[in-house]
Amino acid sequence: MGYWLKKNGYPELICVSFNYGQKQVIELKSARAIANKLNAVQQILDIQFIKDILMRSNSSLTNPKIDVPHGIYTKDNMQSTVVPNRNSMLLTIAWTIACTKNADVLAYGAHSGDHYIYPDTRPEYLEAINLSLRLGSADSRKDNLNLIAPFINWNKAAIIQEGARLNVPFDLTWTCYEGGEIQCGLCGACSERKTAFALAKISDPTIYKD
Amino acid sequence: MGYWLKKNGYPELICVSFNYGQKQVIELKSARAIANKLNAVQQILDIQFIKDILMRSNSSLTNPKIDVPHGIYTKDNMQSTVVPNRNSMLLTIAWTIACTKNADVLAYGAHSGDHYIYPDTRPEYLEAINLSLRLGSADSRKDNLNLIAPFINWNKAAIIQEGARLNVPFDLTWTCYEGGEIQCGLCGACSERKTAFALAKISDPTIYKD
Repeated sequence: MGYWLKKNGYPELICVSFNYGQKQVIELKSARAIANKLNAVQQILDIQFIKDILMRSNSSLTNPKIDVPHGIYTKDNMQSTVVPNRNSMLLTIAWTIACTKNADVLAYGAHSGDHYIYPDTRPEYLEAINLSLRLGSADSRKDNLNLIAPFINWNKAAIIQEGARLNVPFDLTWTCYEGGEIQCGLCGACSERKTAFALAKISDPTIYKD
Repeated sequence: MGYWLKKNGYPELICVSFNYGQKQVIELKSARAIANKLNAVQQILDIQFIKDILMRSNSSLTNPKIDVPHGIYTKDNMQSTVVPNRNSMLLTIAWTIACTKNADVLAYGAHSGDHYIYPDTRPEYLEAINLSLRLGSADSRKDNLNLIAPFINWNKAAIIQEGARLNVPFDLTWTCYEGGEIQCGLCGACSERKTAFALAKISDPTIYKD
């Protein structure tokens, strides 16, 4: 996303990351490496206050007693990776930063492959939350501030092809839902990543455990 | 609100309070006293991670360098009490609790006297955020969960009259924006409280400093 924003008229970036008690907290390291490459500020917010609430939810991404499902994404096996209301919380908090920093845009990495399972990645949701955030902060933000999701109708293969055009360092990016030091290659997210590289016909520099 | 909900078909309550670094953090004690009276659970969320962001904002409610304005609410003197995007954050986090607890309703205490200054208390905002929260959590909440704000078109005097009918212990309620142990009687919120009791023709049991 950072590479796309720099190319599309937003030279100055703040990269916002969250620690919400996710198993794959190592993704924050990847985010930092990419922010450094982009000469961008990384702001990590610790919102683990929400961990207690989410641990008791049925999400395999935050409840240590529930295993992350492996294999290809289907409605059934991936339902457990839903973290209730997660994206609304993350986007709303990031919007506050955008308000206080007088930002022109808040960018969100939703993509079309997620629409089937995650309702908070769909275009109608994007439109609704953008309106709600704009109305709720009408007096404390730049007039033109909007939530955008440039890839919301792109699949992962198309995003990888765009990334290749923009020289994104794919070896630094993180996808895996498991908590390991190396991406597992087996969970739903890793499976989807592998498939997307194959479909995009771009060679995948990722080192997988499996 | 708790008294209204109990009377209107919601016998089981979770009272959600937030510590976001506000000067008037003493309001949490009042909230606890009222939750106890209602035999309700009080859940306090510590979201002071947001304090750093808000301290640098121009809000007199969170920035210790800016004084809380006194006297009657006007657009100019009360603008400094706007905490950027606060209600969107609080409502979105409370919605997550409502999802994980299988709640039927999330109740929000907005009232019409705030519409002029605070955009996140207006009916069009309520409608927008309710839609956005419902869409974003479609798969992890009760179907009928909605954000309601029963007093959104009532003024404070009407709310006080309803409170008197419901035997609300007004002496336990907190309004003041200053950080003292006793309500100041001078800040915009206290001024508005005094006026509302007078208009409602209900005697005000509050002990004010001034």
